Amino acid sequence: MVSSPEADGRQRVAIEGVSPEVDAGRFPIKRTSGDRVVVEADVFADGHDQLTCLLLYRREEDPTWEEAPMAALGNDRWRGAFDVTVPGRYRYTLEAFVDPYRTWRHDLRRRVDAGQDVTVDLQIGATLIEAAARRATGTDARHLQVLAAIVRNAADPHGALAAAFDEAQAALVLRHADRRFATRYARDLRVTVDRERARFSSWYELFPRSCSPEPGRHGTLRDVQALLPEIAGMGFDVLYLPPIHPIGDTFRKGRNNAVAAEPGDVGSPWAIGAREGGHTAVHPDLGTLGDVRALVQTARAHGLDVALDIAFQCSPDHPYVTEHPEWFRKRPDGSIQYAENPPKKYQDIYPFDFETDAWESLWQELHRVIQFWVEQGVRVFRVDNPHTKALPFWEWVIDQITARHPDVIFLAEAFTRPRVMERLAKLGFTQSYTYFTWRNSAAELREYFTELSGPRLREFMRPNVWPNTPDILHEFLQAGGRPAFAIRGTLAATLAASYGVYGPAFELCEHTPREPGSEEYLDSEKYEIRQWDRRAPHSLAGLLTRLNRIRRDHPALQRDDTLRFHDTDNPSLLCYSKVTADRRDAILVIVNLSPVHGHSGWVTLDPGVFGLSDDDAFEVHDLLDDRRFVWHGPRNYVELSPQTAAAHVFAVRHLRSERDVDEYR
Amino acid sequence: MVSSPEADGRQRVAIEGVSPEVDAGRFPIKRTSGDRVVVEADVFADGHDQLTCLLLYRREEDPTWEEAPMAALGNDRWRGAFDVTVPGRYRYTLEAFVDPYRTWRHDLRRRVDAGQDVTVDLQIGATLIEAAARRATGTDARHLQVLAAIVRNAADPHGALAAAFDEAQAALVLRHADRRFATRYARDLRVTVDRERARFSSWYELFPRSCSPEPGRHGTLRDVQALLPEIAGMGFDVLYLPPIHPIGDTFRKGRNNAVAAEPGDVGSPWAIGAREGGHTAVHPDLGTLGDVRALVQTARAHGLDVALDIAFQCSPDHPYVTEHPEWFRKRPDGSIQYAENPPKKYQDIYPFDFETDAWESLWQELHRVIQFWVEQGVRVFRVDNPHTKALPFWEWVIDQITARHPDVIFLAEAFTRPRVMERLAKLGFTQSYTYFTWRNSAAELREYFTELSGPRLREFMRPNVWPNTPDILHEFLQAGGRPAFAIRGTLAATLAASYGVYGPAFELCEHTPREPGSEEYLDSEKYEIRQWDRRAPHSLAGLLTRLNRIRRDHPALQRDDTLRFHDTDNPSLLCYSKVTADRRDAILVIVNLSPVHGHSGWVTLDPGVFGLSDDDAFEVHDLLDDRRFVWHGPRNYVELSPQTAAAHVFAVRHLRSERDVDEYR
Repeated sequence: MVSSPEADGRQRVAIEGVSPEVDAGRFPIKRTSGDRVVVEADVFADGHDQLTCLLLYRREEDPTWEEAPMAALGNDRWRGAFDVTVPGRYRYTLEAFVDPYRTWRHDLRRRVDAGQDVTVDLQIGATLIEAAARRATGTDARHLQVLAAIVRNAADPHGALAAAFDEAQAALVLRHADRRFATRYARDLRVTVDRERARFSSWYELFPRSCSPEPGRHGTLRDVQALLPEIAGMGFDVLYLPPIHPIGDTFRKGRNNAVAAEPGDVGSPWAIGAREGGHTAVHPDLGTLGDVRALVQTARAHGLDVALDIAFQCSPDHPYVTEHPEWFRKRPDGSIQYAENPPKKYQDIYPFDFETDAWESLWQELHRVIQFWVEQGVRVFRVDNPHTKALPFWEWVIDQITARHPDVIFLAEAFTRPRVMERLAKLGFTQSYTYFTWRNSAAELREYFTELSGPRLREFMRPNVWPNTPDILHEFLQAGGRPAFAIRGTLAATLAASYGVYGPAFELCEHTPREPGSEEYLDSEKYEIRQWDRRAPHSLAGLLTRLNRIRRDHPALQRDDTLRFHDTDNPSLLCYSKVTADRRDAILVIVNLSPVHGHSGWVTLDPGVFGLSDDDAFEVHDLLDDRRFVWHGPRNYVELSPQTAAAHVFAVRHLRSERDVDEYR
Repeated sequence: MVSSPEADGRQRVAIEGVSPEVDAGRFPIKRTSGDRVVVEADVFADGHDQLTCLLLYRREEDPTWEEAPMAALGNDRWRGAFDVTVPGRYRYTLEAFVDPYRTWRHDLRRRVDAGQDVTVDLQIGATLIEAAARRATGTDARHLQVLAAIVRNAADPHGALAAAFDEAQAALVLRHADRRFATRYARDLRVTVDRERARFSSWYELFPRSCSPEPGRHGTLRDVQALLPEIAGMGFDVLYLPPIHPIGDTFRKGRNNAVAAEPGDVGSPWAIGAREGGHTAVHPDLGTLGDVRALVQTARAHGLDVALDIAFQCSPDHPYVTEHPEWFRKRPDGSIQYAENPPKKYQDIYPFDFETDAWESLWQELHRVIQFWVEQGVRVFRVDNPHTKALPFWEWVIDQITARHPDVIFLAEAFTRPRVMERLAKLGFTQSYTYFTWRNSAAELREYFTELSGPRLREFMRPNVWPNTPDILHEFLQAGGRPAFAIRGTLAATLAASYGVYGPAFELCEHTPREPGSEEYLDSEKYEIRQWDRRAPHSLAGLLTRLNRIRRDHPALQRDDTLRFHDTDNPSLLCYSKVTADRRDAILVIVNLSPVHGHSGWVTLDPGVFGLSDDDAFEVHDLLDDRRFVWHGPRNYVELSPQTAAAHVFAVRHLRSERDVDEYR
């Protein structure tokens, strides 16, 4: 017998070039609830027969597919869409078939137009309708039988033709199409649907131990709780805390990363584990588990998620070290292998050995840690250095957690090579740190954000951009003073739908490096308690508050896929826009990237981005200083000085009538 | 227990972005015997451990994989290669693993360079070598035991280090690496390896019935045989004959496609089948099956393949129509459904019904037809309108034939939509007709051939370009006279490694359309016997002979993947180059696309294509008229007149020394 690659050699339709699809369906695409998933594919058969092409979709737990018709775009490309309404997992695929009835109607029209005799053709159509009637039941079957009789009735050719060309009747026949030889696309594709904060979020990081209002006292989670109104008032919606667990004594680092700690030094929160416990314990000086729960609940009342830090590594004092020596690598001298990047040694950190024979119990325990914090109410995790743990672990553990808690968000702190960073996003991380911190020129920013928002990455990687972190004080901030912080904060808040700052260091423009050439802070909070004067007059809290307000008011800034750059004639000026799908909200940003000099120049907009034509007039309304201008056409002049404002953040409004323009004359 | 997406959670390596790969491995890539298959992939793991990455390959019938090491290119990209030596099917895939020994050596070097104590590290290394010894057998095992002892010997640290850093010793350890946690790429990928003619071929099409030397007599296969020395002498290597089968009487077309034939009209060879037989019979006026075998054999002695036409359709007189009515579609009036493109009707052609319940016996019979001709010695088939037959059929039948006869070549005559044309190439067609015939301006040619030779298509689609066919006399040839034919012939022969002409119409510049606006010939050979004066003084046979000679002498012209276009400042001048992989052969072509006017201008070469730098001097040697020039740098002046030559076809020779230049002073 014939062994066809298809199940039946009569499956004549080919389906290929499906988009979106990540790595041939190995990984899901990401969306947020309320999104419309638009799917395109090349769908065609031999010859000139008419096709029906359907988009099939379902929630993962639903046994049956929903169907949406796909429309032909020309050149054998088809498009369809479905809505994802709630967080969870969805699937989609395609089915298409040659439709004899659709083909028959299409040809009948051409025959009639050419004045040909269609007596035999009407008989053929009637036979097709009768076949549909046999596939249908109930009312549909009866209607189809009547329709077949009308089309077959040679005594009334006009009535037959009228019935054949009736759209409602045709829809009824097509509803009962012959799908025996339908081609199903080879793969079921997956969608991970997250809650909206996965796409749009504003993060604020702080060290709880520096939050005491009393100088010299170790701050507590209750002190953090007291700051919630202020942080929420600035417009942030995620409060991220570095690890809150007991800190090891052995090999504890001193201030400014000194190899030996002095008495009273508090150590690094990332040296997790001590007598008091490990990854599920709370540092006694910070408070109790009850305090964590209270903080999480109070934060939620302020519209804030509390994000905890998942740093899967141990201090030498961590209970795991004695209770589960099988999770660590031993050296021939009997010692445990500490972290290294030869010739550098980190004796205060023991990494887990993901190649241990006991890898399964290790995975289970690490899953238990995350699950533990989920049970305390935590729904956002910032994962420390995920790129130094086995990649398959992350796919497994994120799947385990989000299967039961689809509202959990994981941010990957993977400052590593591009392919590894991207893989972590594919494996399930909700958001990803980026190279933004090191992209400072207009050309660098344009190239990088074009890549991030482009078709290769946008389906699975959601950038979360940070102008500073406790580990990274970029030279640009060291040298540029307050204007540099204003520039970077404005860029972060408007280039990316998700961004974050490490505060109060950020708004207070903390900029002194530990030593020249270092990206580490002098007197870093990583190793000591700091006091911050949150009311200092030079604080940028006002700017951040304003930017967060603009982000909340303007849905264009709450997505990354519509980011477009526009040309300027001055390399110190960066110009870009974001719009909503319906273009009713449109934001245009022009940033002067110099913290020192004023810059002016001409920007050349792509007016089509805003639904404008080349000679349209439109209003640009600066949401930072509330000034309004009327611009005409693509080329417009701008002038920005670091002494007054880092940027224009314009809302763009199309002036539809001469009267709109007159208002400004 | 833990259920990891990987078989073992310790499979830490990810393999993705494999290239070449067609539609996630659904289809094979194409190569010809003697090619080197270069494979790249993104391969990486968590952390900073060193990897070993291997390219696995085998002939499909071999049970075991060969392995070739892949080398890191940077940014987690790896490259490896293997050779395909004989026609047939090959497979390839990748395997990679974290290599503790490689990592250990890499780190040891850095520790030693930093002056650290490595006593414990040498013990770790010795343990790794001992593990390798246990995986090895025989001499290798004994060598590894000795090596381990040397590395473990604390009494002689210098000897231990010397042994550890010895490259030959390291290679031995790596040969017995621990591959328990190796990642195998998810898919085995396929290569179809054809004989060289699949990549590089020069086709000549003629109608045998027009080959009689006696005016008025019906030409025969023996007449064709007599022409073989002349066709081979012109440098062609495939002689393609339209269908040679009996031609139907019923609804036979007359001269110039007249609806009714006159007595004596010979009919269209594509109306296959009569009393005398169908697709495995020979038209009695052409000769016998023995004549076919003799022609094929004699042609082979001249270095020519005879290509037969596979046109799977029937005249109403075809024996199938009565013997296998189940292979055709019936209309309600009992008649058989003829070919249609409403409102056009082709009553002389019955298409097969690929949706018949008897599709399997139909497929088997069509396979038998091809197999029949293969058994007569035919190894090349030009397939008529494959896009009007079920696509899965082609994948099956080409697979069936080439499994036993990997030297068989199928050319798809699919003048249809791009996706369908491409799909046929993916499904197995060796070569594909293209849109070349309708691409005449420099911009059109540059865009189209850039696409054809680009990464999306070149892995599976081999263009075969024709300036004319019996169906297509383009307006450019109708209007442009002899220079137009010279231009199109030169473009075809130098743009594509495979090209063909429909002769003698081509070299005799047959250019009169049936009526204005038509691409059909007046007095087309499709419907009547023609006499050709092969010795006519205006014949372009000399040019074709010269072009074919150049193609044979210059391997750069025998491949399509290195085609590059260079800028000119005159839109009537098209400039392009082809080189061999080692750049030892390089051809530069500049064509004046106007058949009427002389044109001059400056071409700006990309000198890197030829391995030249911007200020190098080089010789260009016109292989058409044997003139030589020395050019300096990228910008050079050219002048071409249709009265003298359509083009320069330059061999490019790098002048390595001043002496080379002096020759020309």
